[in-house]
Amino acid sequence: MIDRGVSIAFEPLVGRLQTLLEQAGASPFTAEVIARNCAGCERDGASSHGVFRLHGYLDSLRSGTVDGAAEPVLERVGPSFLRVDAANGFAQPALRHAQPVVDGMLAETGIAVVAIKDSHHFSALWPDLEPFAVAGFVGLTMVVGGTRVVRPRGAAEPVFGTNPIAFATPVRGASPIVFDLATSSMSHGDLQLARNASREVPPGTGTDRDGRDTTDPGEILAARGLLPFGGHKGAALSFMVEVLAAGLTGGAFSYEAELEQGAARTRRTGQLLVLIDPDRGGGGFAARIEQLVAFLRESGMTRLPADHRYRNRAQAERDGIPMTDAIAEIFADASLSSDA
Amino acid sequence: MIDRGVSIAFEPLVGRLQTLLEQAGASPFTAEVIARNCAGCERDGASSHGVFRLHGYLDSLRSGTVDGAAEPVLERVGPSFLRVDAANGFAQPALRHAQPVVDGMLAETGIAVVAIKDSHHFSALWPDLEPFAVAGFVGLTMVVGGTRVVRPRGAAEPVFGTNPIAFATPVRGASPIVFDLATSSMSHGDLQLARNASREVPPGTGTDRDGRDTTDPGEILAARGLLPFGGHKGAALSFMVEVLAAGLTGGAFSYEAELEQGAARTRRTGQLLVLIDPDRGGGGFAARIEQLVAFLRESGMTRLPADHRYRNRAQAERDGIPMTDAIAEIFADASLSSDA
Repeated sequence: MIDRGVSIAFEPLVGRLQTLLEQAGASPFTAEVIARNCAGCERDGASSHGVFRLHGYLDSLRSGTVDGAAEPVLERVGPSFLRVDAANGFAQPALRHAQPVVDGMLAETGIAVVAIKDSHHFSALWPDLEPFAVAGFVGLTMVVGGTRVVRPRGAAEPVFGTNPIAFATPVRGASPIVFDLATSSMSHGDLQLARNASREVPPGTGTDRDGRDTTDPGEILAARGLLPFGGHKGAALSFMVEVLAAGLTGGAFSYEAELEQGAARTRRTGQLLVLIDPDRGGGGFAARIEQLVAFLRESGMTRLPADHRYRNRAQAERDGIPMTDAIAEIFADASLSSDA
Repeated sequence: MIDRGVSIAFEPLVGRLQTLLEQAGASPFTAEVIARNCAGCERDGASSHGVFRLHGYLDSLRSGTVDGAAEPVLERVGPSFLRVDAANGFAQPALRHAQPVVDGMLAETGIAVVAIKDSHHFSALWPDLEPFAVAGFVGLTMVVGGTRVVRPRGAAEPVFGTNPIAFATPVRGASPIVFDLATSSMSHGDLQLARNASREVPPGTGTDRDGRDTTDPGEILAARGLLPFGGHKGAALSFMVEVLAAGLTGGAFSYEAELEQGAARTRRTGQLLVLIDPDRGGGGFAARIEQLVAFLRESGMTRLPADHRYRNRAQAERDGIPMTDAIAEIFADASLSSDA
C-alpha cells in the first residue's frame, strides 16, 4: 500500500512512472529503463533528475520529438569499439540494449568504447556508469549538454553546453565512487532554481548580455552566460566533451542544437563511454583503491563523491522515498493522462 | 654555427642535450628522446619544462634514481590494451619504445589503452599526445604528479599531486588542439616562481598550514596547500587521476611517493593513455572538428589551447630558439660534465 502522505516505496514508483511513459508512447522496454532511472534519481536525492523531469519525458514522447519505440542499431567496429545509433530514442535504453555486447567486449578485451549518437539524454550521467563500477569496471563518460548556454571568457557569444563528465570506480568492500560534474560553473537546472527563488549566485557563475560578471541568475539565463567552472581549464574540458561526445560519435555540437527552429534541444545527442577492466592494468587494483579511499577518509575527506546518494538510497530503502507534490501528482488519477 | 648571443637552432640544441644526457648515463635512445622532448618544450615556449629541467634529468641519472638504460617490458593484455613496465626509466622513452605496438593496435582495433608503470615523468604531458593527434588520433592522458602538494577543502593534510590531464584532437587543415592542465589551481613550478619573485598569487590558489586561505606562495609551498582548480570538481578530477594513472597502472599514489625517505619523488610513476581513431566513430570527424574550431574562432575564442606553442615554434623555426642563460650554460664547455 502506498502511504501518499509520507513516502512511497521504490518499485511502486517505478511501476507508476512506467505506466505513464507507456501511455505517452514508450515501448515497455524504454518505459522501464527510463522509469528506473527517474525513480532511482528521486530515491538517491538527485531530485532535479527525478520525477521533476517526468513532464519533459512525456512531452517529448507525445510530440514525437523522441521515438519511444526506437530500435537502436549496434555496429561493432573493433574488438573493443561499439557504435550505437539510438535512432532518435533515449540514450539510456540504447545503452541497455547494447549491454550484452558491451559486457562481452569487456570480458574478452578488457575495454569497451561505446559511441552513442542520435539519442536524447535528459538525466544524470552517474546512473549510466554505476552498474559498470558495481560489476568491477572503471568508466568515464561525457555527453553534450543540449544547447549552448556557456560563454567562456573571451567568447562573444555562448558556445558550449553544460557538457557533463562522469567517472566511476569500484571500491572493494564499499559502494563505487561515482562523480558527475557539469563543466559549467553551475548546472542549468540549479541556475533556474536560483532565479525562481530570487537567490543570488556566487561571483564567477556567469555574465550578463554584455559579458560583465553578475550574480543575478535571471541575467545569466537571459544571456546564456554561464561561465565554465575553473576558468580556462573548465573551458578546455568542455571543448573536449564537444570533440569526444559529439565529434567522435557523430552527434550534434551544442552550437548546432538550435540551428533548426522548433526542433528538440537535445536532438542528435552524442555520448561517449570508455570502460576499462582495471584488473588488466598493472596489478592489485582492488586492494590499492581500497587503500587510497581509506587514506582519503582518514585525511578528513569524509564526503567523497556519491556518498550523499548512497545515504539517501539507504534511507529510502528503509523508510521509503519522501513524498513530494510532484510524486503525489502522478498518482492522482488521470491528471497526467491528457496532453500536457 | 651557433650564435650564442641571440638564438640557437633546434637540432644543435637537441644534440648538445643528448650528449650531456649520455654523459650522465642515459642510453643513446633515452638520451635522444629526452633531448627532443626538452628542446621541444624550450622551442615552444614551455620553458618550465625546457632546458630549465636539465639539471633534474642529469641528477636523476647520475644518482641512479632513474635508470637511463632501462629496458621497458611490454605486455599486451588485450587487442587494444598494452601494459608498459618502464623498469625505472623515464616515461617518454618507454612510450616511444612501445610506439610500434601502439600504432599496430590503433590500426587494427581503432583503440589503444596504454598503462605505463614504474616510470619517471619530469616533463609536460602534451608532447606525449601531439604526435598521435598529428597522426589522426584523439588522445587523453594523465599522470600522478609526483608527491602530494594539493589539499582540497575539508582535508586535514595534502592528499593529491598536481595530477595533470592532457587531451589532443586532430584538426583538419590545422595543427592539433592539445591542452595540458594541472588539476591543481596552479602548477608547483609556477608557485615556486611566484615565491621567488615575491609575487602574490590569486585568492583561491591555496591555503596555509592551518588551512586558511592565503595569497603568499611561500606559505602555500610550506603547507603543501595548493587547492584543486575549480573547487570540488577539480578535486574529483584529481581523484580520477590517482585512480586511473596510479591505481589502474600499478603506479604509486601521490601520498605514497614520500613514504620512503630519500627516495625520488617521482618513483614508480604511472601514466595512462587512451587513444582512439575518431574515424571509427559515428562519421565525418575531420570535417566536423574543422567546423567546430572555425565556429569557436569566429565566436571570439581566438586563443585556443596550444596556439601559443605553435606560434613560438614557428618563430623559433624562423629565428632560432631564444638564447637564455640556461642554454648558454650548457654550451660552456665542461660546466656540466662534473657532478652537479
